[in-house]
Amino acid sequence: MLTDYGSRDKKFTDIIREVREKVLHLGGVSKEEGYETILMQGSGTFGIESVISSVIPENGHILVIINGAYGERIAKISERHKIETTRLEFPENEHPSLEVIRRTLDQKTSITHVALIHSETTSGIINPVKEIGIIVNSAGKTFIVDAMSSFGAVPVNIKECKINYLISSANKCIEGVPGFSLVIGEKENLLISKGNARTLSLDLYAQWKGLEDNKQFRFTPPTHTIIAFHQALQELEQEGGIQARCSRYKQNQESLMNGMKLLGFREYLSPDKQGYIITSFLYPENNNFNFSTFYNKLNERGFVIYPGKVSKTDCFRIGSIGQIYPEDINKFLQSVEEVKKEMGF
Amino acid sequence: MLTDYGSRDKKFTDIIREVREKVLHLGGVSKEEGYETILMQGSGTFGIESVISSVIPENGHILVIINGAYGERIAKISERHKIETTRLEFPENEHPSLEVIRRTLDQKTSITHVALIHSETTSGIINPVKEIGIIVNSAGKTFIVDAMSSFGAVPVNIKECKINYLISSANKCIEGVPGFSLVIGEKENLLISKGNARTLSLDLYAQWKGLEDNKQFRFTPPTHTIIAFHQALQELEQEGGIQARCSRYKQNQESLMNGMKLLGFREYLSPDKQGYIITSFLYPENNNFNFSTFYNKLNERGFVIYPGKVSKTDCFRIGSIGQIYPEDINKFLQSVEEVKKEMGF
Repeated sequence: MLTDYGSRDKKFTDIIREVREKVLHLGGVSKEEGYETILMQGSGTFGIESVISSVIPENGHILVIINGAYGERIAKISERHKIETTRLEFPENEHPSLEVIRRTLDQKTSITHVALIHSETTSGIINPVKEIGIIVNSAGKTFIVDAMSSFGAVPVNIKECKINYLISSANKCIEGVPGFSLVIGEKENLLISKGNARTLSLDLYAQWKGLEDNKQFRFTPPTHTIIAFHQALQELEQEGGIQARCSRYKQNQESLMNGMKLLGFREYLSPDKQGYIITSFLYPENNNFNFSTFYNKLNERGFVIYPGKVSKTDCFRIGSIGQIYPEDINKFLQSVEEVKKEMGF
Repeated sequence: MLTDYGSRDKKFTDIIREVREKVLHLGGVSKEEGYETILMQGSGTFGIESVISSVIPENGHILVIINGAYGERIAKISERHKIETTRLEFPENEHPSLEVIRRTLDQKTSITHVALIHSETTSGIINPVKEIGIIVNSAGKTFIVDAMSSFGAVPVNIKECKINYLISSANKCIEGVPGFSLVIGEKENLLISKGNARTLSLDLYAQWKGLEDNKQFRFTPPTHTIIAFHQALQELEQEGGIQARCSRYKQNQESLMNGMKLLGFREYLSPDKQGYIITSFLYPENNNFNFSTFYNKLNERGFVIYPGKVSKTDCFRIGSIGQIYPEDINKFLQSVEEVKKEMGF
């Protein structure tokens, strides 16, 4: 990140090309098979909004499968763009019902697009993307998957999962730094979306066309962040690819969950629903527990945890992704034990 | 940029607060005087689109003063959002006519907003922002200024120039790295814009509200880029503030222009219109000159120049901003001389 490349410099445009290729391979697809990577400035939400506001035609209709705050956010985005939106809501601690999805698609024939969150970090649940993709595809709808916190660690074959658009971010499982999002799009679908974009900055088709035509971004790219991502992709390869990273994260999450159980904490999700990206723990039923104090005391020890995000239950969340190894989990658990004693719960 | 702050970390939210304050001071205003800084993820264009798509109401009407490609881009953005748009076009090598602007505002009473590019890098011209601001303000319209490549080096007092919204970028005269844009907004005007936003990601009011309410970004910020910007602001202060940076850039531009003249090059703009941010030079009238070769040969010597952007004349452009000092200009001129000999023009 300490080299200041010009955004039109061949060295930099070579990096963009390489990044775009490698991202496709992480999704199990290639340019030859008809898939394209588009990088979009901004956070993951900018990438989601880019897809929603660029690929759905004026008379389109999106079904958003919701079992957490991120599903709800997609519905908010499509409504903001005055796109007809149907919310299909499921409890935050349950997988969406395949039967209900199938039935809804049968009944509401005007639906053109379906959106799903792969790893819903509201709770930590990982949704069955392949099963849902097959249903969406058989119904002839375009399938949009928010794989923000899963891509790069939860294996997904885009073609087998029948995904037309997958969105992820530089700074989750690929372990880059924040500053842009990435979209894998099926080229055929992307081509017919030309002219649908409701914004200039987030115009997905135009962004792709720019990257293809002159290898450059249409508007100033976050060069340093993209170079960091290029390095992160190399480190992912060195680690052994998605399978190896998946194993490390799984091991992190298991050690975390087992250790927290021994310390008396309980998880929000049932074990069969629990993903390995982030884990929601219930607040201990003890008057001495206070989340803010708990957070600060862990922070002082070098650990940053997340507040809860599920709507009806008091939880806090702990991530198990990033440059985190078994020894980090052990140190973290020791800190939780100390803080627990200090706070007296 | 090598520290990985959490986006909710107090150390980081303190940096955001400090950055937002310092940006206001660079504009000659403060929170107490009713101005607010909003940082927006993405490039400068994202900041422009954030303002255009967030502050103009559904029945609004924007007059865009155009004397280059960046003015044209604003018109493209407002049209994309189906906002009534009037283009007021002037030649690329001339200042917009104050008289024509005054007359247009008198005649088209439905106009609610006026947009202007301060430093139009298409040619290198710096537009008379204060004179235009006074006209716009007397007519009772909201004044939006794209100060992308001027803010931090071309002194502007936002209040005196009657600017309601000024947009700039992290990576121009403040010398940060690319990844976000900054908006200074008049609070009163911002407050009445609530509910106008046509997107979620670029919702200016909501972004401001988030930064005010919990000191955080609504969506993942480019933490490393913001930390670099914080450092860049300190370096701007150490240099002696806007006046000192203005002097350095002016000196850079003068040495560049004089040196290029001695080498037989001619500028596109007349001296009274020439800004000190970027300079357009005419292609030499010699068959041995070829821009691509010229560019590559300079690149090999460590200098990156810009292709031309004016519509009817063949030019190339040379920037004089950033970490560039007199010795860099001298080295550059030596390289141009070498390349000129090699190419035989």
